[in-house]
Amino acid sequence: MSEPHYNPPRGMRDIVGEEAELYEHLFSEFKAAARRHGFMPIITPTVEYFTLFEAKSGEEIKRSMYVFEDKGGRLLALRPEVTASVVRAYLKSLRSLPKPIKVYYVSQCFRYEEPQHARYREFWQGGLEVIGEQDINADLLVAIAASDFLDRVGVNHLYEVGNVSIYRGFMRKLEVSGGLQDYILHLIDKDQVDAAINKLREVAGERGAEIFKSLLSTKDLDRVEGFIADYGDLLGELREIILTEHARTRGFIDTLREIGYSAEYEPKLVRGLAYYTGLIFEYKVTGTQALPSIGGGGRYDGLTEVYSGTFEYSTGLALGIDRVALALSGRPLPQTGKYVVVLILGDAPLHVGYRTLKAIVKGTNVNGYVYRARSLSRGLEHVNKAGCELAVIIGERELKGNSLIIKNMKTGEQVQVSLGSILEAVKNMISS
Amino acid sequence: MSEPHYNPPRGMRDIVGEEAELYEHLFSEFKAAARRHGFMPIITPTVEYFTLFEAKSGEEIKRSMYVFEDKGGRLLALRPEVTASVVRAYLKSLRSLPKPIKVYYVSQCFRYEEPQHARYREFWQGGLEVIGEQDINADLLVAIAASDFLDRVGVNHLYEVGNVSIYRGFMRKLEVSGGLQDYILHLIDKDQVDAAINKLREVAGERGAEIFKSLLSTKDLDRVEGFIADYGDLLGELREIILTEHARTRGFIDTLREIGYSAEYEPKLVRGLAYYTGLIFEYKVTGTQALPSIGGGGRYDGLTEVYSGTFEYSTGLALGIDRVALALSGRPLPQTGKYVVVLILGDAPLHVGYRTLKAIVKGTNVNGYVYRARSLSRGLEHVNKAGCELAVIIGERELKGNSLIIKNMKTGEQVQVSLGSILEAVKNMISS
Repeated sequence: MSEPHYNPPRGMRDIVGEEAELYEHLFSEFKAAARRHGFMPIITPTVEYFTLFEAKSGEEIKRSMYVFEDKGGRLLALRPEVTASVVRAYLKSLRSLPKPIKVYYVSQCFRYEEPQHARYREFWQGGLEVIGEQDINADLLVAIAASDFLDRVGVNHLYEVGNVSIYRGFMRKLEVSGGLQDYILHLIDKDQVDAAINKLREVAGERGAEIFKSLLSTKDLDRVEGFIADYGDLLGELREIILTEHARTRGFIDTLREIGYSAEYEPKLVRGLAYYTGLIFEYKVTGTQALPSIGGGGRYDGLTEVYSGTFEYSTGLALGIDRVALALSGRPLPQTGKYVVVLILGDAPLHVGYRTLKAIVKGTNVNGYVYRARSLSRGLEHVNKAGCELAVIIGERELKGNSLIIKNMKTGEQVQVSLGSILEAVKNMISS
Repeated sequence: MSEPHYNPPRGMRDIVGEEAELYEHLFSEFKAAARRHGFMPIITPTVEYFTLFEAKSGEEIKRSMYVFEDKGGRLLALRPEVTASVVRAYLKSLRSLPKPIKVYYVSQCFRYEEPQHARYREFWQGGLEVIGEQDINADLLVAIAASDFLDRVGVNHLYEVGNVSIYRGFMRKLEVSGGLQDYILHLIDKDQVDAAINKLREVAGERGAEIFKSLLSTKDLDRVEGFIADYGDLLGELREIILTEHARTRGFIDTLREIGYSAEYEPKLVRGLAYYTGLIFEYKVTGTQALPSIGGGGRYDGLTEVYSGTFEYSTGLALGIDRVALALSGRPLPQTGKYVVVLILGDAPLHVGYRTLKAIVKGTNVNGYVYRARSLSRGLEHVNKAGCELAVIIGERELKGNSLIIKNMKTGEQVQVSLGSILEAVKNMISS
């Protein structure tokens, strides 16, 4: 192997130091926000049968999966996303629970593609899923829980909202096959709108091209509604369904605005996953020109059927934790509490340090650890480098006098106290 | 594929419902305990080059790894454990930091073996590592941080303590090769003591067998010290080193006892990983006859050298979160806070629900979510099934009167209040 032994696999990385602190902070805030909104945790396997993702993940994801055979010849895959697993787990274990089912996860996912700036072959997703509810409020629930998370960690964001059912409805009536529908939506997703319209012209004639040109030309929901009415004869019995879907798009956007979020309709939003069926949305970070996307979601009604289940209404979202971390990089992390190091010098017994620490942790809000040093100066050097506020110093001489020394590392102040009055002394020094 | 579509891969599983809650609780308590003791998080890749584990993981682990080629022909493996990755990450990214380096992780690991009761092909480990400290206090630090976690989640436990350096020292002097040393220790680990002694007799004669018989025969540390003295002529210049190591074993056990833990010397403890070099220990759950092991750790001084780094003193441990969960199964989870569902009935607008919820979350300690129901009875049925304590009911009629209803689901008590006095009313109902 030509690469050094200490490199992680190509396209992957170690997350260490402040970045790891940030990730842990984001993981725990995402989970807390999910719980606040009534979601329960779910943990699905990192590895799944390849067939789980084969059906509905979309061409791009399928091409970039880590796929391998187990010793029994079964084809396995490292999960490229978690929604398929949640739907599978729902069918296996959660069907009998009262609906809607509301679950959250924070999981690493994998894609095998050329590494790019800030895109890794292993990446982290925080997700929310609601299974068994048709009401637009299910979509709002996941959206607002995610916004609550983003608000608390300090990511200003807006919503872009679309609805793939309108495009799919028209294409169905234009007799475009499912696979071609996926391909045309894929082109729109890749911002190749002209190519998408040309493709549609090729397979469905000039009228198809005209309809899509119209629909893709405006962010004005009234005008979109007008187009749906204009082309209503083509839609036939789908007309009412599509108008209802359009009203859902409007209701989603309006409610978000009413409660203080920015949201706008984006006709070119179709998202990369093939399983979306209706309303979809994406989160963009505001405050920068690029407005990078940090995740999104939408309706995947009936995905349960792909895995031989009965039809269920479903919606959900996933945030890219790596992208949220990137949006926050450079900003200070929330302060953690005060910290103490109990220094054991020379041959003073370690257990005195541990007992003292235990008393401090129990009696105050201060955490810490025991460190044994050969000399006081080495001990204090350690405390300084560790960035701790307080040192409790226990040497043989102090022990003989049943006392110890507490030192405030910032002010340099230090006091000698008896073992019995340690708690009071620590409390005094924290508050000073 | 003959298995139903909704099965996870063989030997793996979904963790859902109360079990998922327990896992999340354990993950977060493990991390909190690690942080309290001054450990920093580290996140390493789930996938590593196979070569990382080839050198020092031990025969058994090597045989049961998930190994596969990437598209570039490189051999990858799903990690069977995390210590090798931490050492690799240390060499790549953490070498320049002040020592000791103290890191924690909670990560899933993989082993490809026949599924057994409560042993899965994907399992969760919580780990602590200290790199760059020789003092026995580094071993105590990881041990006590893990005990702190176990104490807080309510797992009564004791320590079994051993030291492989004594066996390795004697075998080295008996000119037993490294591979054979590993094999003999492996036999002891598998509780095949007679086979281990016979093997040693075969390769090192009667004296070797006699020494190991003696060492393995007693849990009395004084007697072990006596044996080391008795066979001191064989050890030569290693004698002092081995005696120092033995004193470390004693110091570790004594300090644990002094601060209130049960700890005993166990000569047959050698642990399955080939990288251990000295003191090792294991956690056993007390209160049951079987005393199942829930994890352990020990010294792996110099493992850095295997990956072309300089020599570093190192120690660490990992707890099997699945085994901790098993030890706790059936016990009630810690209570979470009070919960409210804001019910939106009929055509009352959703955003009024979200604004009301926001005010409640901000002004009280109560979390919750908005649920839209077609009728009051369906709404209350949902709240009941969800197990929530409070329902806030907003219907069109109430809205016209600028009021809403708060209902205590346990007592059935309900009051009508104005939108402006909602916070006070919720607070009253919580405290009642």
